[in-house]
Amino acid sequence: MNTIKIFCPATIANLSCGFDVLGLCLETAGDEMIIRKSDVKGVRIIKIVGADLPLETEKNVAGVAALAMLENVTNEFGFEIEIYKNIKAGSGIGSSAASSAGAVFGINELLGRPFTRKELVLFAMQGEKLASGNAHADNVAPALLGGFTLVRSYDPLDIIKIKSPSELYATIIHPQIELKTSDARSVLKQNVSLKSAIVQWGNLGGFIAGLYTQDYDLIGRSLHDEIVEPLRSVLIPGFDLIKQTALENGALGSGISGSGPSIFALSKGVATAEIIAKAMSEVYNNMNLPYEIHISRVNDEGMKVII
Amino acid sequence: MNTIKIFCPATIANLSCGFDVLGLCLETAGDEMIIRKSDVKGVRIIKIVGADLPLETEKNVAGVAALAMLENVTNEFGFEIEIYKNIKAGSGIGSSAASSAGAVFGINELLGRPFTRKELVLFAMQGEKLASGNAHADNVAPALLGGFTLVRSYDPLDIIKIKSPSELYATIIHPQIELKTSDARSVLKQNVSLKSAIVQWGNLGGFIAGLYTQDYDLIGRSLHDEIVEPLRSVLIPGFDLIKQTALENGALGSGISGSGPSIFALSKGVATAEIIAKAMSEVYNNMNLPYEIHISRVNDEGMKVII
Repeated sequence: MNTIKIFCPATIANLSCGFDVLGLCLETAGDEMIIRKSDVKGVRIIKIVGADLPLETEKNVAGVAALAMLENVTNEFGFEIEIYKNIKAGSGIGSSAASSAGAVFGINELLGRPFTRKELVLFAMQGEKLASGNAHADNVAPALLGGFTLVRSYDPLDIIKIKSPSELYATIIHPQIELKTSDARSVLKQNVSLKSAIVQWGNLGGFIAGLYTQDYDLIGRSLHDEIVEPLRSVLIPGFDLIKQTALENGALGSGISGSGPSIFALSKGVATAEIIAKAMSEVYNNMNLPYEIHISRVNDEGMKVII
Repeated sequence: MNTIKIFCPATIANLSCGFDVLGLCLETAGDEMIIRKSDVKGVRIIKIVGADLPLETEKNVAGVAALAMLENVTNEFGFEIEIYKNIKAGSGIGSSAASSAGAVFGINELLGRPFTRKELVLFAMQGEKLASGNAHADNVAPALLGGFTLVRSYDPLDIIKIKSPSELYATIIHPQIELKTSDARSVLKQNVSLKSAIVQWGNLGGFIAGLYTQDYDLIGRSLHDEIVEPLRSVLIPGFDLIKQTALENGALGSGISGSGPSIFALSKGVATAEIIAKAMSEVYNNMNLPYEIHISRVNDEGMKVII
């Protein structure tokens, strides 16, 4: 195999009570990449469609992740990468992670899988470091592993994959505003009350239990962010109304995707997800705010080879 | 059935990363109670063996819990209660909870089970309120339900029972010192850093995942308290050495039981639990500190009828 085409899924990180530790993988939203073996060593980004991103390997998250990986494996080839972006940068559904994770996944396939998907997370994190200054795994882990991922620890890196209940769907609405990660970061407080923290970890425990027991009601009851959402949601136009609308239309829960501005709602079954999408859209239509909307089952497989 | 004898298990609450939300039930440590139907209405504590506790119904946790329950069910009988205490008050393994939960469990059996075990938690919590001023469920929930219990929320009360991995054992050492709950409370800080809180909920998520997947290593890696243990452990003589000794002798993890002074260690298999017990005992022997020690499988059944 000398050329590979892959699907690089979008992801939701910072899932409510799982701020900074819990993410999920999407099925119908994502980029594509074509990666080709070359006799010329090194990594070259030869084409980017759909986004204005640097072609220089060291300035591109896919390039940086690929280089981090190739430093750790003996290999006689070079690689050419074409990136077809569908996930908008700054949307809060893991645009940079799709590229970082895609590059290492694709090259790993072309090399006959010297690394497991979990091992690839560490290399993909180097792309995230370039993108945000912080080598986080919140999006690259679910993109690579699929389903839900819990980043239990960074030192050492310990990632737990949790299978998604089969009927769990996400609706994601992306208001077309710019929300800088630095602004989303700056509203956070360095300290939280012990009381709120206990509520948060009680809910996270409930959410994880809900996933393992496929208890959609428990998933819904637990999907609550006591700490970050109250601070960040004020930066997102119409957040409260969008969330309330989602809940009124059958969502199990709703919250901020990543560091925003996208808002997600989880639901049981595609029919409810579609009803929620319609209702959310009406809110932004009434506000004359442009948006994109995605409906997707939670993708338990993660990144995959198309051809 | 007019008379019932029951086993009222000891419990470990505040399980490391699960401070205030996670507890487990023990199998070999616990009290016994005999409860008898009577034609005279009301609840009478007629005998207490093994502890100096009030016989007056309204001043006894078992009495208060029983009364709270009987207010919520039509019933023509009264009840006499005998309490045989083995769990020392103030040990940190749920002494008052065993009595509160035992009373409501036993009466519920005699009445033909008008309530589920989960429903009984709410009544047993009234006993805890008398004991500590706070109607918490940390100990009564695992005593009634068995296994591990997660108190996801108090308002409304939402308790999740999680089955224990079958080979999970606890070793508990109880140094014979008095540690007042008020002192254990007063060392807590009202605020915690967001960073520590994230570490804590990452670990709690990992611990819950470890329980569902019976992954003993993950249980061990996750059994870590970033927030409360560093503050409280200084109140317990030899804590660091006991914990270190447990870990060196094969414990998956170790921490403070309840609000102390008991220290627990979890392990896979009874043989390791016994080795840990021996090693912990040596530490306190060397310190000339009197102690009690318990070895118990995690009790997945919870409270039970003996006769």
